[in-house]
Amino acid sequence: MSGSTFGKNFRVTTWGESHGVSLGCVIDGCPAGLSLGVEDIMPYMARRRPGQGGFTTKRSEADEPVIMSGVFEGKTTGTPIAIMIKNNDQHSKDYDALKDVYRPGHADFGFDEKFGIRDHRGGGRSSGRETAARVAAGAVAAKILSELGISVSAKAISTGDAAAAAAEGDSVGGIIECVATGVPAGLGEPVFDKLDARLSAAVMSIGAIKGGEIGDGFAAAGSRGSENNDEFFMEDGRVKKFTNHSGGILGGISDGSDIILRCAVKPTPSISKTQNTVTSDGSDTTIEIAGRHDTIIVPRAVVVVECMVAITLVDALMENMHSKIQDIVYFYK
Amino acid sequence: MSGSTFGKNFRVTTWGESHGVSLGCVIDGCPAGLSLGVEDIMPYMARRRPGQGGFTTKRSEADEPVIMSGVFEGKTTGTPIAIMIKNNDQHSKDYDALKDVYRPGHADFGFDEKFGIRDHRGGGRSSGRETAARVAAGAVAAKILSELGISVSAKAISTGDAAAAAAEGDSVGGIIECVATGVPAGLGEPVFDKLDARLSAAVMSIGAIKGGEIGDGFAAAGSRGSENNDEFFMEDGRVKKFTNHSGGILGGISDGSDIILRCAVKPTPSISKTQNTVTSDGSDTTIEIAGRHDTIIVPRAVVVVECMVAITLVDALMENMHSKIQDIVYFYK
Amino acid sequence: MSGSTFGKNFRVTTWGESHGVSLGCVIDGCPAGLSLGVEDIMPYMARRRPGQGGFTTKRSEADEPVIMSGVFEGKTTGTPIAIMIKNNDQHSKDYDALKDVYRPGHADFGFDEKFGIRDHRGGGRSSGRETAARVAAGAVAAKILSELGISVSAKAISTGDAAAAAAEGDSVGGIIECVATGVPAGLGEPVFDKLDARLSAAVMSIGAIKGGEIGDGFAAAGSRGSENNDEFFMEDGRVKKFTNHSGGILGGISDGSDIILRCAVKPTPSISKTQNTVTSDGSDTTIEIAGRHDTIIVPRAVVVVECMVAITLVDALMENMHSKIQDIVYFYK
Amino acid sequence: MSGSTFGKNFRVTTWGESHGVSLGCVIDGCPAGLSLGVEDIMPYMARRRPGQGGFTTKRSEADEPVIMSGVFEGKTTGTPIAIMIKNNDQHSKDYDALKDVYRPGHADFGFDEKFGIRDHRGGGRSSGRETAARVAAGAVAAKILSELGISVSAKAISTGDAAAAAAEGDSVGGIIECVATGVPAGLGEPVFDKLDARLSAAVMSIGAIKGGEIGDGFAAAGSRGSENNDEFFMEDGRVKKFTNHSGGILGGISDGSDIILRCAVKPTPSISKTQNTVTSDGSDTTIEIAGRHDTIIVPRAVVVVECMVAITLVDALMENMHSKIQDIVYFYK
Repeated sequence: MSGSTFGKNFRVTTWGESHGVSLGCVIDGCPAGLSLGVEDIMPYMARRRPGQGGFTTKRSEADEPVIMSGVFEGKTTGTPIAIMIKNNDQHSKDYDALKDVYRPGHADFGFDEKFGIRDHRGGGRSSGRETAARVAAGAVAAKILSELGISVSAKAISTGDAAAAAAEGDSVGGIIECVATGVPAGLGEPVFDKLDARLSAAVMSIGAIKGGEIGDGFAAAGSRGSENNDEFFMEDGRVKKFTNHSGGILGGISDGSDIILRCAVKPTPSISKTQNTVTSDGSDTTIEIAGRHDTIIVPRAVVVVECMVAITLVDALMENMHSKIQDIVYFYK
Repeated sequence: MSGSTFGKNFRVTTWGESHGVSLGCVIDGCPAGLSLGVEDIMPYMARRRPGQGGFTTKRSEADEPVIMSGVFEGKTTGTPIAIMIKNNDQHSKDYDALKDVYRPGHADFGFDEKFGIRDHRGGGRSSGRETAARVAAGAVAAKILSELGISVSAKAISTGDAAAAAAEGDSVGGIIECVATGVPAGLGEPVFDKLDARLSAAVMSIGAIKGGEIGDGFAAAGSRGSENNDEFFMEDGRVKKFTNHSGGILGGISDGSDIILRCAVKPTPSISKTQNTVTSDGSDTTIEIAGRHDTIIVPRAVVVVECMVAITLVDALMENMHSKIQDIVYFYK
Repeated sequence: MSGSTFGKNFRVTTWGESHGVSLGCVIDGCPAGLSLGVEDIMPYMARRRPGQGGFTTKRSEADEPVIMSGVFEGKTTGTPIAIMIKNNDQHSKDYDALKDVYRPGHADFGFDEKFGIRDHRGGGRSSGRETAARVAAGAVAAKILSELGISVSAKAISTGDAAAAAAEGDSVGGIIECVATGVPAGLGEPVFDKLDARLSAAVMSIGAIKGGEIGDGFAAAGSRGSENNDEFFMEDGRVKKFTNHSGGILGGISDGSDIILRCAVKPTPSISKTQNTVTSDGSDTTIEIAGRHDTIIVPRAVVVVECMVAITLVDALMENMHSKIQDIVYFYK
Repeated sequence: MSGSTFGKNFRVTTWGESHGVSLGCVIDGCPAGLSLGVEDIMPYMARRRPGQGGFTTKRSEADEPVIMSGVFEGKTTGTPIAIMIKNNDQHSKDYDALKDVYRPGHADFGFDEKFGIRDHRGGGRSSGRETAARVAAGAVAAKILSELGISVSAKAISTGDAAAAAAEGDSVGGIIECVATGVPAGLGEPVFDKLDARLSAAVMSIGAIKGGEIGDGFAAAGSRGSENNDEFFMEDGRVKKFTNHSGGILGGISDGSDIILRCAVKPTPSISKTQNTVTSDGSDTTIEIAGRHDTIIVPRAVVVVECMVAITLVDALMENMHSKIQDIVYFYK
């Protein structure tokens, strides 16, 4: 496997399994001179922890990030920022029953096919726990954005009935919307690295997310050009749009209005209802997944979406700095 | 700008503007020994040309690809395959009126903000014409997939009323579904390069596409775990699934069932209806876009989606070859 | 094969074989607004052509670059610059005798082992002719550098006796030195992308080059710290060095003094003297390589070295723009 | 800064400063199923530690690597392998005197120019201590190579007179040669990713190394084609070479003979002799660097060179697996 690194100039690498001793991230390419401390990261970690909105896991995850490198006397030095988070509350024994059976809706079968080996404890690398490392990195990205007056904010805009589902041993999903304000026009690269494509890849790389859209997204497919186009007008010497069906991105490049992204979170695959499945040695069986699982992952995924969007925007901001020869000349002269 | 290259080991770079002398692609990393000729590419080019299903542009685009390198005596040599396509029917004069005005729904404004300069003729680099180069590359990818028994097939599953729209000088969008069959389990990398993320980025990098989903996608957000999970069973010694809500990808890794992807195409932004807009020097104005535009781009975009999916799968197939030490040892011994 | 792209933000992809219809490059990431025309490229192409200093091939290579995209009304637009160069004077028949035999010192055997197929005509992709595409790209890089007051200049500082070698049907090599002046301090990234490493990879990727060094290079291995260290002093408010044993790079980062690089060019492997070799079907044989070969490639390689250095520096200049948070904030505010 | 990641498919990221709490690496793309434990890494760490051949630093560096992820029940799982090494014996106070002064021959000045901030303790990120993380990763690469019958072995072939230098408070450098045996033909990619270029970048990214060469290297520049070419012959049905002036790489592709690389290590820049220098606020001054420095770094750098070569070869071995369509078809069918 590779693919544990995201970004081009602001590069985030995550590592670690659900039930290993710890997990973490390395941020390479973070600009120097940014004030940064654990206190910038903690609030983001807290928002990912169990207990968001109820019906989430009762596992205790302290999630105290430790900055191992890249910060000196309270400021980033431009060198890689390694952040480590200990895995405290491992009930690995809970997973012994799952060792030789493929949980429906999980990555178990794919991992075995791909690697021929699998850390079955808590989903291993494919566990939602991996997103703790993303959130630590995203908090750093958000700090950079805040210096530029850019804010990123996500929320659940639709969720299933978690109470009913929990009662039935089932689970539900939902939709998360993320809005970035203050984003300058000009971010994103015209062809394969359109900002839509980069943002979409960013959120679709989160485990449970199976759909993404920018602006009107799928609804745009049913509208007409005269409805979907955002007409321009001048205000205070600046180009504005009457509407924002484009979600702030035209032709892959930010247009200065709010970036709007939505993504679909599938229902948590771990349910206690009986399901048909197979064992790793090829026999039919059934499974009921006990343990401390989230009936709904959506409330905890909100901050993960926000963080992936923040990381993507920082990367795009950096890349855009060398789009014009005048800017390069100005920088060096 | 950068971002004109897609892929990691099978790398496609496109170049060219709508009204330049020609455009093309370079495929770096195509395996050697593949039988390849223009005849493999032509049928794909034909499917992208105007006239697909009516209500598409009357521009004549011969789109005859020329293979400039990388093929010797009918076989790929493993070196870069450069394919060039001439731009024959340029009515650049049609665009003179658009030189200093930003078309709503187009990339014009973003390009000017980003680059401070813009080839206004026919959309320049942001024109749908750029996809001709992607289709040429996608045809090569599809040829590789066919050697492996993998097929990729897309179609429009929902479109607006193009006839009505054309009559009113308006435009419509639609939804394209793409299915890949014969894909082995194990493709995709677990974290940021999940197959969902890579496929999503692939199609979201196509100009008019504003949403993407895998399997049940957004619908999954409204279902329960017991509905959305695909239960496993054994058949003829192989692991099968009763359903395919996951769209063939679990935890970012292909599960051996059909890959199913849908994407949303926005209505063509070029419409002849009057729209409010601004000029590049900052005055309010109105615009009616004359010219030979597609009322609906969906029928022509179908093959582009197919090609982007094919390119993504070839890349994933290559990367997966070194997932296990046993396979590496076997290869070299 | 992949590996036909060099650079991170300023990305050069080359394509084409010695005896194909044409070859070329795509430059992705060139900043917008640069004045650029064929006249900027021609002088560089001319310096690579046969006839540099005598004892080079009598092949006629017109090497007229055509800019296919990325330039509009004399200025770069920020989109990919594709440059094509026709192969005019192909005497492919000259190479028929070499079809089934491996030329000593050439890539023939390696290509067959790697790809199982080989365009034997003139070396195919491994021909020195591929460097024509690099020179076209390098001319663009040099134009950017000139806007910043940076100049790159290479020359042969030692060559074998070409006249004697030509008389004996043999060949010689030599050493090229390249100096870049006006390079600001701060370029290069501290660890794997040290400027030494990037420059070294740049020139070692040229076919005949088998060694590279920065500053005192190999001689430094024999000196003492007190000799090799460049002592600092202040002059006109700036940090200066009494000497430049480091070749302008300390710890992988440019120090503001001249960048000095040297590289070793091996003797041209094509010689008319009789050599032992083998056929592709595994028989011993001998070979005398007739044809229009360079007795010495050094004079023609000078500009190629210069171009690879220029490309590397432009890439490093871009990356360095986002090293400090203050600079990012200043850029966007 | 970025550039803390090396490799394409087998990707090594290092992090950490000399006087931080710890440093480490993340290996992404390591194949699954490899037996791996700390005992595989320890011998490599030991070879990098002080005390190699005398005249090296008296700092005590326990260098006990801890595997944090990617290994389950003694085997790699295909997921990122994070390895952490504690920094035990930090005498940060030793460096207080160096806080505001630029040490000649060190990266201090460049870091300040680039980042505007610098962890002055022990060289921070530019310290040779960073190579501990490379060695941990290199040990994993070497384990992979051993499965394939490939061995990599480096040694010092020339060093200055360390005893004399130590007596005078000076330092010396030397030359390291590295030989890889058992490397199959076909590794390396023909153009920018020639194996020469990749190996050269690999070793030139080590702090003190200022020159690299393959095979005869710089000596080849003074020889004739008839001397430098390696003539082929058949033996036991295999293609062999009478000599190995090419150092096992022709046209950027391994030819099946031993890979031979040499690199030049400059004398340690930290010397106790008085040197002229400047302060960070722009005054002339002098410096004598006390502390526990290596008079010669060469003996400790040997294993670092070996490790960088091993990492490069593993990456090339992976990439080469998809060079031929037949091999891809065979793998999946």
